[in-house]
Amino acid sequence: MLVQPIQVAFYNCNAHKCNLIGNWTNELGSNMTIVKPTPGTIFTGSYFTAVTVENGTVIKESFLYGAEDDQHSDQPVFGFVVNWSFTVSISDFIGQCFVDGEGVEKLETMWLLRAKADSSGDNWKATRVGSNLFFRPNK
Amino acid sequence: MLVQPIQVAFYNCNAHKCNLIGNWTNELGSNMTIVKPTPGTIFTGSYFTAVTVENGTVIKESFLYGAEDDQHSDQPVFGFVVNWSFTVSISDFIGQCFVDGEGVEKLETMWLLRAKADSSGDNWKATRVGSNLFFRPNK
Amino acid sequence: MLVQPIQVAFYNCNAHKCNLIGNWTNELGSNMTIVKPTPGTIFTGSYFTAVTVENGTVIKESFLYGAEDDQHSDQPVFGFVVNWSFTVSISDFIGQCFVDGEGVEKLETMWLLRAKADSSGDNWKATRVGSNLFFRPNK
Amino acid sequence: MLVQPIQVAFYNCNAHKCNLIGNWTNELGSNMTIVKPTPGTIFTGSYFTAVTVENGTVIKESFLYGAEDDQHSDQPVFGFVVNWSFTVSISDFIGQCFVDGEGVEKLETMWLLRAKADSSGDNWKATRVGSNLFFRPNK
Repeated sequence: MLVQPIQVAFYNCNAHKCNLIGNWTNELGSNMTIVKPTPGTIFTGSYFTAVTVENGTVIKESFLYGAEDDQHSDQPVFGFVVNWSFTVSISDFIGQCFVDGEGVEKLETMWLLRAKADSSGDNWKATRVGSNLFFRPNK
Repeated sequence: MLVQPIQVAFYNCNAHKCNLIGNWTNELGSNMTIVKPTPGTIFTGSYFTAVTVENGTVIKESFLYGAEDDQHSDQPVFGFVVNWSFTVSISDFIGQCFVDGEGVEKLETMWLLRAKADSSGDNWKATRVGSNLFFRPNK
Repeated sequence: MLVQPIQVAFYNCNAHKCNLIGNWTNELGSNMTIVKPTPGTIFTGSYFTAVTVENGTVIKESFLYGAEDDQHSDQPVFGFVVNWSFTVSISDFIGQCFVDGEGVEKLETMWLLRAKADSSGDNWKATRVGSNLFFRPNK
Repeated sequence: MLVQPIQVAFYNCNAHKCNLIGNWTNELGSNMTIVKPTPGTIFTGSYFTAVTVENGTVIKESFLYGAEDDQHSDQPVFGFVVNWSFTVSISDFIGQCFVDGEGVEKLETMWLLRAKADSSGDNWKATRVGSNLFFRPNK
């Protein structure tokens, strides 16, 4: 007698994994590049913002570094810090890398932007909040 | 004739610089340790949270890494990312290290906590926001 | 002799004032209607959300009320509260009504969504944050 | 035969309901008074802030109005809008009224503060975020 094995086919709807590495641009025209020097959750990169709080500031490229959870999903959650090289402030971005059925990737993020307060009494007004959508730049 | 030189005394009101390195605890009872393996703006550390979104989760120590602007102030602005080791989510903290006249240090922070969304359509509800005050633990 | 009066023409670059009143829809498909029962800064309205935190909840129309600063700009800043009728939570929206050169209006908003915490110890995780873009619905 | 009715005693651990109405002060020294002119979920009041973004601004009392969910808990969730009378900006507060075993009340809140942006291109930097703890003022 022949026992027919049950055929099981796993089909992954998101065949394409969302990949943080590479170039991104957002709706404000800011550009960033994410690199991953070693395997693991940590990444680094550079951020070239198109906008600043203080008009007239000369913008320079700034360093970013962060972490992603790439073990539990094809659409990894991530966070990174940007230490602005041209002003005394720091930004935190947090978000998730989403990929649609056609393989188009985007980063949906929210951020906090922290300015230096002169004293603890001015701390309350030092934090801005916002959101940014990043997509792959056109060639 | 004797020309008396003008005496100039510089007095620094914040003689004590606020130092991110070492142990911190916050008002929720979470503990963290910040270390700085090399000179510069980057730091690493560990975070042992006292609270989780999902009750019943077994909490484990998690890795943190971040950056501070320690060039422009005795009260540096900083940001760091915590990649939670026991759950698929990421936190971003941003804040400033303040020191008072008696040399007592505190970290005033705000944070974003990002959960994994199943799809881009659920992205809108994936981000929590809050604040934490960190102080030096009692010996 | 004829004294020719100096001709002065005032030209308003934003001839169209951004008007909160009426119907709006956002990128998630939520709809709201803003009405202004009496002149002044206060407005009311209704919000029919397309999304909820808890899947499976039966969504009902909810009441909103807020205020705008319509004295100092053709692009007024506003804030409003939505008391969700079908769940124990409250949302706050804050934003500005922008109008472009063609008279197309949009509302750029950020919001906080507050759930009920069982106790003060759970307060830290009760607040979500996000952003929404509202535009005039197609006829 | 005597049927003994089952005795059921309801004991409310939070005998004291947290009450939004009345005077509150926060950790920055700002004061507010909440009044409820009619039964229901809507309330109004006044807010006298101790702090402003722009130093040197003459602070005046400002109007607030909001809503609470007082049907589903002795510790109601609430939100309110403050239309600042002395500057072109709006604040949204959202939070919950907590009462401890001794009947001591506090309001744990988070807020967004929205400034006027000159154009949609400056919208990204117009929103600040923070938290405030309100308690009953000392007599």
